[in-house]
Amino acid sequence: MSNSQLKITILGCYAATPRSFTNPTSQVLEIKNHLFLIDCGEGTQVALRKNKIKFSRIKHIFISHLHGDHVFGLVGLVSTFSLLNRESELHIHGPKGIKKFITVQLQLSGAWTKYPLIFHELSSRESEVVLEDEEVTVSTIPLKHRVYTNGFLFKEKIGDRKLLIDEAQQRNIHYTLFKSLKKGKDVTSEDGILIKNNMVTEDPAAPLSYAFCSDTMYNPEMVPLIQEVTALYHESTFLESEAALAAPTKHSTAKQAAEIAKSARVGKLILGHYSTRYGDINKFKEEAFTVFPNVILGDDGQEIVVE
Amino acid sequence: MSNSQLKITILGCYAATPRSFTNPTSQVLEIKNHLFLIDCGEGTQVALRKNKIKFSRIKHIFISHLHGDHVFGLVGLVSTFSLLNRESELHIHGPKGIKKFITVQLQLSGAWTKYPLIFHELSSRESEVVLEDEEVTVSTIPLKHRVYTNGFLFKEKIGDRKLLIDEAQQRNIHYTLFKSLKKGKDVTSEDGILIKNNMVTEDPAAPLSYAFCSDTMYNPEMVPLIQEVTALYHESTFLESEAALAAPTKHSTAKQAAEIAKSARVGKLILGHYSTRYGDINKFKEEAFTVFPNVILGDDGQEIVVE
Repeated sequence: MSNSQLKITILGCYAATPRSFTNPTSQVLEIKNHLFLIDCGEGTQVALRKNKIKFSRIKHIFISHLHGDHVFGLVGLVSTFSLLNRESELHIHGPKGIKKFITVQLQLSGAWTKYPLIFHELSSRESEVVLEDEEVTVSTIPLKHRVYTNGFLFKEKIGDRKLLIDEAQQRNIHYTLFKSLKKGKDVTSEDGILIKNNMVTEDPAAPLSYAFCSDTMYNPEMVPLIQEVTALYHESTFLESEAALAAPTKHSTAKQAAEIAKSARVGKLILGHYSTRYGDINKFKEEAFTVFPNVILGDDGQEIVVE
Repeated sequence: MSNSQLKITILGCYAATPRSFTNPTSQVLEIKNHLFLIDCGEGTQVALRKNKIKFSRIKHIFISHLHGDHVFGLVGLVSTFSLLNRESELHIHGPKGIKKFITVQLQLSGAWTKYPLIFHELSSRESEVVLEDEEVTVSTIPLKHRVYTNGFLFKEKIGDRKLLIDEAQQRNIHYTLFKSLKKGKDVTSEDGILIKNNMVTEDPAAPLSYAFCSDTMYNPEMVPLIQEVTALYHESTFLESEAALAAPTKHSTAKQAAEIAKSARVGKLILGHYSTRYGDINKFKEEAFTVFPNVILGDDGQEIVVE
């Protein structure tokens, strides 16, 4: 994958229970050189196989909340990593309690992992950075649901400046200085002339970002956190016709998801977490489209590339 | 279903992990008016749907041991029963620890069941009766595996005697006495003549029985407990060519399963719990057949009717 795109693979995007042809929530996000797993409903490990995702590339798993349709597949995946003789660290970021949730099962089944399993338990009600390296930052998006829940914001860091190789060669700049140019520095040519950086470089590609927001009621407080993200996945459990169900269960309608997308001026809105009461999910797209034009109807097995 | 048969639906019979086209262990046994679920690997609730098993008919679940491939689907099924507004009791029979295994997850996900969830924790190393009513008896079969494990023996109780209706009418017996005849009693005819029971009744059908034995190493100690059962499901994780793997992992080979079946003079042997290392499971049947002729190669989605 080129560095100038994100790839989201939807393993499952239906609410409540796994069914014959629909999976509960789980996604894989490919960003820079990372492959992140987000949520892990029952059957996620099978969906990973069906979507030909290489298990060993997953080093970080982010869990939004401890409702079964977002986490019941985690212990099985953790165990399968052991059977596959994984040796590298696995980091699990999720709500306080997730360590007990998983380790009680491993202990009772007499099957501790052979690889380092590292839990990062979250409890803050404010957004916080949960992972940062040279290429990406991952931070939480506090959501409002029936239990403690976080969305996650994945952001590329701004990359190196783009070298205009022909310009640099014309100005007789030695190639050993190219790295300095990419880092934004001015350099001196072979002819002893000072070359201002912007004469031979261009701004790097705008960093891409992805916000995963599920499960949550309609919550405009999240808007500043997800301002202008490249893509937003926002749950839409219900249609407006069932808005009376959305409120008490602290879920959103497709229209509400679109209103959040519009307010935050995001690039694309991806819908999901559909209640299984609906036969035809196209209605979700139609409803969201009345508010926000760039809507993608998420579905199981779908790969969404964002550039 | 007639009362003179058992129906076994194999939801999953592969070892270790769920894969794209194979499920970990779970079976449904229909015996008399009961529908029992035996073991519950990840994905069992989806397999129940695919096999069109009515969830509400399951009132008792039997769990052999706490390895993930036999139990990771249980919490999801328990939760789905709640979403389906179950009100009737659900009884779970399994090793000591199973209550904690499930309830820790329910508590942490803030989702206690709305129906009575009753755990029957097992810890005996001797066979014991775990369920008995007018029609069936279920008892444990202590197995030898890496963790505390029980198989389960399901036995019909001997039924009523079979009334020979023509004989009874010829002898002028009032129909109100038919129930007594079925219970084996002698009666007096309308003509005042004592009618011995065996003049107008026949022995009832022989009670059927089913033994589920997985996971276990080769263990002849179980033979007296499963003597002459109508059908035996015995794990066969390996072929004899991998016998060196079977011993340390406390699993059996297909040949060993057949030797148990032969020693116990069972009606049919059903194989399963195949290691996913084997491409062609027919080899399991071929190997077992060299020792015991009446072998069924279990497979996911298979219905086996035993009469």
